[in-house]
Amino acid sequence: MTVEKCNRERLWDSIMEIGQIGHAEVAGSKVGGCHRLALTDKDKQARDLFVGWAKDIGCSLRVDAIGNLFLRRDGIDNSLAPVMTGSHLDTQPTGGKFDGVYGCLAGLESLRCLSENNIQTLRPIEVVVWTNEEGARFKPAMLGSGVYANVFKLEDILATKDAQGISLGSELERLGYQDLMSKEDPGCHQYYELHIEQGPVLEALGTDLGVVAGVLGMRWYNVEVVGRSCHAGPSPMELRNDALVGVAEMITELTNIAGQHSKDSRCTIGELTIPNSSTNVSPGKVCFSLDLREGKLAELDELQTKAFETIHRIAFHHNLEIDIKETWSLPPCPFDEACLANIKQACQTSYPQDKAHQLISGAGHDAVYVSRVAPTAMIFVPSEDGLSHNEKEYTSPEQLEKGCNVLLNALILSANSK
Amino acid sequence: MTVEKCNRERLWDSIMEIGQIGHAEVAGSKVGGCHRLALTDKDKQARDLFVGWAKDIGCSLRVDAIGNLFLRRDGIDNSLAPVMTGSHLDTQPTGGKFDGVYGCLAGLESLRCLSENNIQTLRPIEVVVWTNEEGARFKPAMLGSGVYANVFKLEDILATKDAQGISLGSELERLGYQDLMSKEDPGCHQYYELHIEQGPVLEALGTDLGVVAGVLGMRWYNVEVVGRSCHAGPSPMELRNDALVGVAEMITELTNIAGQHSKDSRCTIGELTIPNSSTNVSPGKVCFSLDLREGKLAELDELQTKAFETIHRIAFHHNLEIDIKETWSLPPCPFDEACLANIKQACQTSYPQDKAHQLISGAGHDAVYVSRVAPTAMIFVPSEDGLSHNEKEYTSPEQLEKGCNVLLNALILSANSK
Repeated sequence: MTVEKCNRERLWDSIMEIGQIGHAEVAGSKVGGCHRLALTDKDKQARDLFVGWAKDIGCSLRVDAIGNLFLRRDGIDNSLAPVMTGSHLDTQPTGGKFDGVYGCLAGLESLRCLSENNIQTLRPIEVVVWTNEEGARFKPAMLGSGVYANVFKLEDILATKDAQGISLGSELERLGYQDLMSKEDPGCHQYYELHIEQGPVLEALGTDLGVVAGVLGMRWYNVEVVGRSCHAGPSPMELRNDALVGVAEMITELTNIAGQHSKDSRCTIGELTIPNSSTNVSPGKVCFSLDLREGKLAELDELQTKAFETIHRIAFHHNLEIDIKETWSLPPCPFDEACLANIKQACQTSYPQDKAHQLISGAGHDAVYVSRVAPTAMIFVPSEDGLSHNEKEYTSPEQLEKGCNVLLNALILSANSK
Repeated sequence: MTVEKCNRERLWDSIMEIGQIGHAEVAGSKVGGCHRLALTDKDKQARDLFVGWAKDIGCSLRVDAIGNLFLRRDGIDNSLAPVMTGSHLDTQPTGGKFDGVYGCLAGLESLRCLSENNIQTLRPIEVVVWTNEEGARFKPAMLGSGVYANVFKLEDILATKDAQGISLGSELERLGYQDLMSKEDPGCHQYYELHIEQGPVLEALGTDLGVVAGVLGMRWYNVEVVGRSCHAGPSPMELRNDALVGVAEMITELTNIAGQHSKDSRCTIGELTIPNSSTNVSPGKVCFSLDLREGKLAELDELQTKAFETIHRIAFHHNLEIDIKETWSLPPCPFDEACLANIKQACQTSYPQDKAHQLISGAGHDAVYVSRVAPTAMIFVPSEDGLSHNEKEYTSPEQLEKGCNVLLNALILSANSK
């Protein structure tokens, strides 16, 4: 097999050029941040630029009813379902230049390489830009891929409004990116998504390539712990019924459980509030959020069981009342073995010296929803300091090149398979 | 020595009658709550009623520049400094009927007993109503006794404004309770304050009488703990730098330290905030309040040293940065031995079967400031369920009677001593 190589400089320059749309100077950031919310004028500018670049190399554009862009490079047999790759161009309010953008631009770079080397693939290849992945302007997140995969109803999502009361549907209409379907939906043979890791694992391992075997399942809970508040002075320690003291023990044990349960276990207490708190009153009530994640459903169930047992045991010991409410959940999402095999082969042929690391993504991506309707897998490259959703987000040109080369060769493998 | 006895019914009825001014019906409360902020029209009504009752038995009124009321029953030798007793008539916004009020009314009941039994004392006895003890309307708390004891400067306190911008001085003027000094300040031989416990100790011990040997010293701190926030998904547990996980360990250890340090140790974390918290972000920064109390200065210093060592050790272990700022402090306040001896003798003669319990108050009282200018001690009776600053605050007529009898006989002992 011939190993194709992308153009590092062109890839970098394209990412930086798109990053100028919404660019934010930030002290301590190597390239500055990016502020480009979904379906704003800036998002349209980025889409226009991206579509123009794709058309320059002969791609055709298809836009579905939720504004997802499909930029298609024809194959030898265009009756076959295309191979797809992509990500998103919207950013967090104070986001970086790589989250999402890298996946779209590496897809485009892959097509540019194929074109300039006159490489024909059996199947068409499509680069997709999913609408409103971040969920920062319109909620929920991963909205475009969710509609594509029939997770959300189109009408509901079109009616979704941002904080200013502007509906997503009216913004799509205003920007002119809706329902430009030249033909029937051609389906999807396989979907590959290349993304920065948004975490510290690859950097800590010193490896530049991550083969993403799936996405962690997640469950969110609100936990309410009720004891009895008392005056900080007159109440001896042994006569107290302090909810925060119980919660502190819970936090320690819950995080220890997740640390020991499996390498994919996550337990996060992100929010904690003490209603009517006062310096000289021991807390009678504490509310906290609990975010549990695991790679497999059985493991997630077991983690939840252990977590609930721990909370109830500590509450009993401290004479506290407990109320736990699940507020959201998403099952674990294992990716497709055939897609993973193609990615691993591409890693092996492009970087035989590198030891690609197989991991499970802790964060959600468009690939989670797409995986419900097409075989899917992801590739990660490191995020410096594990940072993402942050203006200081950074991945080096060399690392971006590596990921892109793996994507390019995985796409070729996929697009040449019946 | 003759043992004098108060009139239980009259004491109870007087407390309930004053409690009608600002009375609040409350479900689950035996007698209802009381809403009577300092220097409001309701406070004036209560003062008027109280002063009227005292004048009915021949007392004279003196009012100082901060509005403290001194109701004097002459002694045999009026050139001697009076014995004083008292407390306050203002309440918390949603307070009870006993906190403060009991001390004033038990003082009045003592004078009523002396009058109806034609008992002359060597020294005059004065019942004091201190202005704005609660600190709920004007800050700080214990304001009238603080000015009396030269802890605060009069001009500063007169200029203090409530949340509506109304100054304390203008309210004193409006209500007519200021600077009605018939003669020079006569000083104070000894000061006794009778109060509900506001805590659970006496009830837990099954005793109705507490001899209060002092008030705990207190120090307040704000502690800021900084780690690094990260996304709840992509960051494995072992690569996190979660400030809340460190703080949870601190809370557990700090409360354990206070539980073991001495019977008077108190450690309360009453406030805890996570700036910019989010369910799926592990906290990068946590701020909490720390309230440490101890009976002796050396013990308080030692408790602080242990607490700081613990915070720094855990922070080091978790790679967290720490900033601790002291925001307020009050040294421990040991009460006067001679006053305590009189109280103990009064307990012994009035209730030889009861085992009075000697304890240290965890909460501040007017007696803390008065003790800086006159020999002082306090008497406690139980608070049902340890409740205070609460509409459900309750102490039974029998318990109130017991405390009042101890006060009455301690006052006689004191007022008959040279």
